[in-house]
Amino acid sequence: MNLTQKLIGSHLVCGEPRPGEEIGLRVDQALIQDATGTMVMLELEALDLDRVRTEVAVQYVDHNLLQADERNMADHLFLRSACRRFGIWYSPPGNGVSHPTHMQHFGVPGRTLAGADSHTCAAGSLGMLAIGVGGLEVAMAMAGQPLFVTMPRVWGIRLTGELPAWVSAKDVILEMLRRHGVAGGVNKVIEYHGPALRTLSAMDRHVIANMGAELGATTSVFPADERVREFLDGQGRAGDFTELAADPDAGYDLEDEIDLSRLEPLIARPGSPGDVIPVREAAGEPVHQVVVGSSANPGLRDFAVVAETVRGRQVHPQVSMEVNPTSRQILADLSKSGAITTLVEAGARVHQTGCLGCIGMGQAPAVGRNSLRTVPRNFPGRSGTHDDSVWLCSPETAAAAALTGAITDPRDLGQDHPEVRPPRTASATAALIQRPPPAEEAREVELVKAASIGALPELDPLPDALTLPVLLKVGDDISTDEILPAGARALPYRSNIAALSDFAFGQIDDGYPERARAAGPHAVVGGRNYGQGSSREHAAIVPRHLGLRVVVAKSFARIHWQNLANFGVLALEFTDEADYDRLRQGDELRLEGLREAVEKGDEIRCGDMLLRHRLSARQRAMVLAGGWIPQVRNR
Amino acid sequence: MNLTQKLIGSHLVCGEPRPGEEIGLRVDQALIQDATGTMVMLELEALDLDRVRTEVAVQYVDHNLLQADERNMADHLFLRSACRRFGIWYSPPGNGVSHPTHMQHFGVPGRTLAGADSHTCAAGSLGMLAIGVGGLEVAMAMAGQPLFVTMPRVWGIRLTGELPAWVSAKDVILEMLRRHGVAGGVNKVIEYHGPALRTLSAMDRHVIANMGAELGATTSVFPADERVREFLDGQGRAGDFTELAADPDAGYDLEDEIDLSRLEPLIARPGSPGDVIPVREAAGEPVHQVVVGSSANPGLRDFAVVAETVRGRQVHPQVSMEVNPTSRQILADLSKSGAITTLVEAGARVHQTGCLGCIGMGQAPAVGRNSLRTVPRNFPGRSGTHDDSVWLCSPETAAAAALTGAITDPRDLGQDHPEVRPPRTASATAALIQRPPPAEEAREVELVKAASIGALPELDPLPDALTLPVLLKVGDDISTDEILPAGARALPYRSNIAALSDFAFGQIDDGYPERARAAGPHAVVGGRNYGQGSSREHAAIVPRHLGLRVVVAKSFARIHWQNLANFGVLALEFTDEADYDRLRQGDELRLEGLREAVEKGDEIRCGDMLLRHRLSARQRAMVLAGGWIPQVRNR
Repeated sequence: MNLTQKLIGSHLVCGEPRPGEEIGLRVDQALIQDATGTMVMLELEALDLDRVRTEVAVQYVDHNLLQADERNMADHLFLRSACRRFGIWYSPPGNGVSHPTHMQHFGVPGRTLAGADSHTCAAGSLGMLAIGVGGLEVAMAMAGQPLFVTMPRVWGIRLTGELPAWVSAKDVILEMLRRHGVAGGVNKVIEYHGPALRTLSAMDRHVIANMGAELGATTSVFPADERVREFLDGQGRAGDFTELAADPDAGYDLEDEIDLSRLEPLIARPGSPGDVIPVREAAGEPVHQVVVGSSANPGLRDFAVVAETVRGRQVHPQVSMEVNPTSRQILADLSKSGAITTLVEAGARVHQTGCLGCIGMGQAPAVGRNSLRTVPRNFPGRSGTHDDSVWLCSPETAAAAALTGAITDPRDLGQDHPEVRPPRTASATAALIQRPPPAEEAREVELVKAASIGALPELDPLPDALTLPVLLKVGDDISTDEILPAGARALPYRSNIAALSDFAFGQIDDGYPERARAAGPHAVVGGRNYGQGSSREHAAIVPRHLGLRVVVAKSFARIHWQNLANFGVLALEFTDEADYDRLRQGDELRLEGLREAVEKGDEIRCGDMLLRHRLSARQRAMVLAGGWIPQVRNR
Repeated sequence: MNLTQKLIGSHLVCGEPRPGEEIGLRVDQALIQDATGTMVMLELEALDLDRVRTEVAVQYVDHNLLQADERNMADHLFLRSACRRFGIWYSPPGNGVSHPTHMQHFGVPGRTLAGADSHTCAAGSLGMLAIGVGGLEVAMAMAGQPLFVTMPRVWGIRLTGELPAWVSAKDVILEMLRRHGVAGGVNKVIEYHGPALRTLSAMDRHVIANMGAELGATTSVFPADERVREFLDGQGRAGDFTELAADPDAGYDLEDEIDLSRLEPLIARPGSPGDVIPVREAAGEPVHQVVVGSSANPGLRDFAVVAETVRGRQVHPQVSMEVNPTSRQILADLSKSGAITTLVEAGARVHQTGCLGCIGMGQAPAVGRNSLRTVPRNFPGRSGTHDDSVWLCSPETAAAAALTGAITDPRDLGQDHPEVRPPRTASATAALIQRPPPAEEAREVELVKAASIGALPELDPLPDALTLPVLLKVGDDISTDEILPAGARALPYRSNIAALSDFAFGQIDDGYPERARAAGPHAVVGGRNYGQGSSREHAAIVPRHLGLRVVVAKSFARIHWQNLANFGVLALEFTDEADYDRLRQGDELRLEGLREAVEKGDEIRCGDMLLRHRLSARQRAMVLAGGWIPQVRNR
């Protein structure tokens, strides 16, 4: 068996583990962040949960950090009270990004992790089966329910050779994206193996596993080996180590190989993480901003190598160099090692720990000016700037641009690639994650809800007949950032669906909310890979609140597809993709005998089009009920 | 002569230095920041300036740092290009707050400094005559014009004794505010002298001089003595030192004395910097946030003492502890000394260098939850939160609350007051302030103006007859924060008067902009100390753009009063304050023969009220012309 099969096998609760079938997995750990967490807490309240049943559940506050008005701290008060009420650890703002922080303080090889954040898969670096899903699924997992996923195929990636100078883990995942694009991993678990693993630290693996999300993969998995043991040792958690690997003769559904020694510095061009070219092909483009940080390059090494590269020099005067330490522990270690001093003296702006520019919370670039970032995503406008020009690259490539003011292959700096040796033992910052009180004390805790904390919308069952105007038609690879933006304007409203509605599809067509309010029940038409990117269930709840009942698309991204079902939106695929071209905004879709059609089979007629839903029996039931919460309430 | 008289005497260009008379002073140095600077650059452009004529002019970027969309970096590109064009030093974001940064790298005893920021007075710590004024006055000073001020009275404050444990410089200025209130310094220069000065470092004096602004003082002045020599030595600028002091037998127009040894920890209650009580009287109030930073407590000591107080302990779990290093140099020094590590390990959020929460750029507290801050101002809503509850205190008092989660007299911590010894030599960060190119190269520089950079409004002359509806009547001590808010919502529009107009008086009455657009020419009625606080000339330009022609008030704060004249708004005082009570919103003021009345005398009839303008001949001319820029253009 390969490692993915072992992890699934040891957690299988229901279903047949055949690719394409829905399976249910026991969830050991749960992770939420503030931008998804306030909704999760409202869901736990709606589910009348007494106390979470996972081994560990942690609420991180890392997204919504600008705190421009009273809403933000109102969220913190609500989240902290809900954590104390339901038995969830609370990691307050300042502790850092969920993924590295969870890995540092809670990650355990062999465990499953359900996270309400698409980059949850980063924990695959420790030999965990870590899956990013919608908030409601995490809420259900916290309540003791299995996590349901489509049984993926397992894609073995054999790594050989050794990374050359100035090439690092980020270039490995950029190479995967160069080869396979943003949908290359759909319905697959990517399992890395091979002799090169011994050269990649646990945090290097985090870099690679994290951006499996950008390939659309269900998750990524690494073995738990000596490198993982070293990492857990450094965290003072040697006891949490278990060795885990694929059997020596294990096979994979699909196979590929990367010879690390043949890689070179790579960069994703503005607009998509999948548009990857060698850095040298873009060399010379002027750069106005460099952003170092995020869960895609979270490790001490990723910052230290930047510090060493700029040591004793000064950032180019045209460049704003932003450094976002990813976790409290990493900031403490960077500070102890002198790297912070080096960065500050070179001219960097050192920001608070957190996601920041990666999620468009500040650090918005100027229109059309190149910004080089070590973050995982560059969907249009995600930076907070319309007509942005954001490139994705390694810390090495970012540091080179910071020095020269232009895109520069770091091998051309004429310097030695710095050797960075993180300390054996990391700073002890675990105690700053707040442990929930015991059950009796917890039951006395009242939820603190300021006026800005909204309520879950009421969701009615799926009608049997629908006449739906197509209010919007979009192209391929529409991300949840485009359906429901994050960023400094919208994120502060994440606890309030009604207020957040004004932002729906704002990147694509800011007339949508008004049209939707006027039209009531309506449909949206999409292309391939509809709903890629972030796991935010708000991208399903908000359009549903505005009347969205059906999305017809060529194909759906995994997490958003499930989120639509969770909130009672019927996701339909064209059986003939040519029908996509025939549909126009303003057309009307007539659907009759809908409940029976959904209940009984896969195919649904709509005029002369044949559509299909691909929903499991479980998913059909929730769509018919109007969503998972009304379904649970009906029982 | 006292030192103030010497400084004025050596820079007097015109006018009689008699209290109440307008005098003109030669300006040696000029300071602007980003929130006022974009307007200054537009003014320099309107004045057709070739190159600044002050010895030194510096543009800092410290206010508008959240960078939530493309406007912010558009400002930076504009400011940097304008600096290069006009011969101004450019201190990019990340270098820190203007006042400590200017002191560290440019401050010279005996020089005058005009700054478009009300806390410019902080440079009095080095024996400078440093005056905060509106942006247009700084623009004129850069163009070689004198700075015009009302000759102040000189208020000698004799300091004796030595500060007890847990009491620091902030408590000295809070004691001044406790005794004299927010208008206690109006038309005065506060000159500190006496034997206790030897116990106060240059940065301690910065703390005291800075918040002279909160007393309404024209500025504050300290002698340049051994402590100043030490400071300049530490900056590698020993050559810039000149010893300066009052003559031994000098007298003052007014005198007061503070025995430092009798001071205790003080705190200003929410709403006003002038509402000061002993900390012990508020002890036990729960605290949810602590903010350490800003120009009011900018020194290395101010952060290090907090770090030492929390060393090895953890911040109370209910408290968000925000640390905003004030300058790049201080952040580098804090990092080298280990204080950053200490703060991070104790649970602090360490933010980028800059003003941040002090100006409502992030760090907004929850409604009604106490936030203790070392910043200079707590006007209602300035934090970004309606119904905020912001208290002002020393770093020691802030650290105590961070540990206990309640307002706590730091003497009750049961710890020793930490001894903090800043390094003899400060980190070398001066090179990160960008020197402007030489004149020939500068003439080739094009201003970079994105679409978000607006234009100066066209201003018409004062009509001879006006019938003005009173669109708004406000009370005493209305600050420029209330007239034109800063904060995360409004600050990004500071480069665009038309867009900024939507925010005018929003804190008090958000119907004002709409009423003003409908009414056209109109008046506003104010109480005492109208326009206190920040120097932002936007608080004059924006209402003027909306049609404001006359403000009638009981009295005006110095900087805003001049800003109104600069932009052609007639500021009138009641000769009988009882008339204030008779005026209502909606009343109509009829003013006839206005031009002649302004030109010829001080008094103006309006119905049965007698008003007066107190304007100098110079100010009368600019008001008649519709503002200073049209007046210059007419010449």
